[in-house]
Amino acid sequence: MAYRALDSYSVLDYLRATPALGAVLDLSAPLHAREVGDGNLNLVFIVEAATGQSLVVKQALPYLRVAGESWPLTRERMRFETQALLKHNELAPGLAPQVYHFDDEMSLVVMENLSGLEVMRKPLVARKRFPNFADHISTFLARTLFFTSDFYLTGVEKKELQAKFINPHLCKIQEDFVFTNPFMESPENRWNALLDDEVQAVRQNSALKLALAEMKLSYMTHAEALIHSDLHTGSIMANAELTKVIDPEFAFFGPMGFDVGAVLENLVLNYLSHFAHTPDAATRREYQAYLLDLVREIWVQFAAKFDALWVEHNRGELMPAKYWAHPGGAEAFAEFRRRTLARILQDVAGFGGAKMLRRMMGIVSVWDITSITDLEQRAVAERLAIRIGSRWVTERQAISSVDDLIGIVREEAA
Amino acid sequence: MAYRALDSYSVLDYLRATPALGAVLDLSAPLHAREVGDGNLNLVFIVEAATGQSLVVKQALPYLRVAGESWPLTRERMRFETQALLKHNELAPGLAPQVYHFDDEMSLVVMENLSGLEVMRKPLVARKRFPNFADHISTFLARTLFFTSDFYLTGVEKKELQAKFINPHLCKIQEDFVFTNPFMESPENRWNALLDDEVQAVRQNSALKLALAEMKLSYMTHAEALIHSDLHTGSIMANAELTKVIDPEFAFFGPMGFDVGAVLENLVLNYLSHFAHTPDAATRREYQAYLLDLVREIWVQFAAKFDALWVEHNRGELMPAKYWAHPGGAEAFAEFRRRTLARILQDVAGFGGAKMLRRMMGIVSVWDITSITDLEQRAVAERLAIRIGSRWVTERQAISSVDDLIGIVREEAA
Repeated sequence: MAYRALDSYSVLDYLRATPALGAVLDLSAPLHAREVGDGNLNLVFIVEAATGQSLVVKQALPYLRVAGESWPLTRERMRFETQALLKHNELAPGLAPQVYHFDDEMSLVVMENLSGLEVMRKPLVARKRFPNFADHISTFLARTLFFTSDFYLTGVEKKELQAKFINPHLCKIQEDFVFTNPFMESPENRWNALLDDEVQAVRQNSALKLALAEMKLSYMTHAEALIHSDLHTGSIMANAELTKVIDPEFAFFGPMGFDVGAVLENLVLNYLSHFAHTPDAATRREYQAYLLDLVREIWVQFAAKFDALWVEHNRGELMPAKYWAHPGGAEAFAEFRRRTLARILQDVAGFGGAKMLRRMMGIVSVWDITSITDLEQRAVAERLAIRIGSRWVTERQAISSVDDLIGIVREEAA
Repeated sequence: MAYRALDSYSVLDYLRATPALGAVLDLSAPLHAREVGDGNLNLVFIVEAATGQSLVVKQALPYLRVAGESWPLTRERMRFETQALLKHNELAPGLAPQVYHFDDEMSLVVMENLSGLEVMRKPLVARKRFPNFADHISTFLARTLFFTSDFYLTGVEKKELQAKFINPHLCKIQEDFVFTNPFMESPENRWNALLDDEVQAVRQNSALKLALAEMKLSYMTHAEALIHSDLHTGSIMANAELTKVIDPEFAFFGPMGFDVGAVLENLVLNYLSHFAHTPDAATRREYQAYLLDLVREIWVQFAAKFDALWVEHNRGELMPAKYWAHPGGAEAFAEFRRRTLARILQDVAGFGGAKMLRRMMGIVSVWDITSITDLEQRAVAERLAIRIGSRWVTERQAISSVDDLIGIVREEAA
């Protein structure tokens, strides 16, 4: 069927004409759909049956919403999202929505409705706690990254998978809007007018811009694993029990630190937002301490799980057991793993810092902070984000533990 | 036409049945073919007409010759070679053989016969000089690497080209036989029996093996540019005027330093071979000095040409002129280029060293040295190669100029 954008009526006709979905929801029952997309690229419908069953229909639009129809984007991104969701379900079962149906022509995927789960940004602003989050997200990161890397896959398997995730148009969005445009004059950039001086200072900071260029080069060339590539807290839904990573349409083979950095950086931005959202100092400090504990726990658990997977599932590319069989070889293998994780942590700093900065002065802001209505108060958090982000990027090569990353947050926020 | 391996008779029938080749050579004249392949993967025929015209037919065999028929290899590598030759002709005209005809089904390419040119190994052993070589090979490297990198191509262009060069089976050969198998017990390894102690010492050297694992990871993940990936002096034909790079069937998007390192490392192996090939000390020292001058010249000219191309053809991915337009921005851009080339030089050391080592103890030796018939004399050169290769790999992060690389050669050879 030729592509046409659906609305909340035609989506029901589409579902009724797809009998395989009868296994998920009673297609003969009365159905109701509402469009709930707040993203920039897609229509999202929640469809509910009178029986209480439900599902989600997500359809790519042929343009980037926030920039108007002038940004043509291939609809193939829904194929990348579907492929990535299937891979995530395979590698990290229970931590991504299930896929029920995919229609390439219509650029449409039908998937599990995550009712009872919330996108994490608002509850984090409301100081909600997620007792399983550090465990779940570190598992998601460790398993999706390890099992798609050269540490697990054979060279041939990895390159065959990589060929399915060559995703140039979505990559270009991140390349331009994370690393380049926010840091020079570009018409789509937006920032709090009270930050004019800080934005100009970033744009004139040669050391910082050189480091950002290096991070962009690394993003464009380091094909380490299948990364989600947009793993902010708006791409995570959770409740007290469950965690689900959504929206992997930017997925491609890139640097692992980009995903880990996105999670940690968004927790830091949320931390900073509480200087305005949580005026009571004791309450604020307690929740901010919780957020920094999350940052530490996520990294520590990620590193431990990644390392354990590597030891348990070493299939030999880097390197076979025989290669490490000499006296001292076990220690050399352990040191190789330790150095690899140390390098990923430095990438976490570099990518996390770049993403923190772009949220302050690029096309995409961050709700945790833009929801602060008092511009002076908002500027307090934003100035801190610029200082922390800049230091994460420029000091990345001196970062040797997650406490160094957290230390920069503490020093600047003190 | 279904695949069948040609012989020196059937190749003529094939050519006569391909009328388009009439533009290259008179198909109605008497033709003569001889098989001259000394490689491991292919049949190579030189076909000459009574008119004096000639061409080369290269056909992939469905197995790796040196390992016997037990190593099935896809014939698709002839497609990679042809694509790469066409790209090389486009980007570095005159520095690669011209392609006349490609037959995907037959895994066969018809190309320019490089009569009057020699594969460089033997003339280098015979102390021949190539006055244009440093200029030509540095141009080939600078242009093929720069114009296929993210410094020149847009992100979308690069990824589309990269998709055509996902080359898993040929990559695997380099991954295994350059970085892994030579450094552990593996049945195909061969070395001079006088080197038993040195080979065992390499296999037990934890620091070296850790560094080799890091270089392999970089080879497998750093998709910087379309590299030749087998650019030793056996893949270069030359005479006093001309230089042609041949055999790019291993081409894929990998680290630039791998190609530059292959050229320099092979010149160093040739340098070492002269301790046996050229007994007269004055003659030897003069030619060895020439070889180290070549090493320096090739790097210096490569770096200068790459940098000049980048300045002249900056299409904006890393980064646009506007990004560097702030006060001090020109210096920051220059520093970014300087650091990029410094990092490539460290890769040259790491990859060049790894390749030097594998030639001493892996499946593929090097004619310059194996042609030394006296095993004691041969061992002198080989021990030096092991020491120099080990230091290039383990000291790579301290290399800051090509003179550091040459200094290691001089110190060990003194």
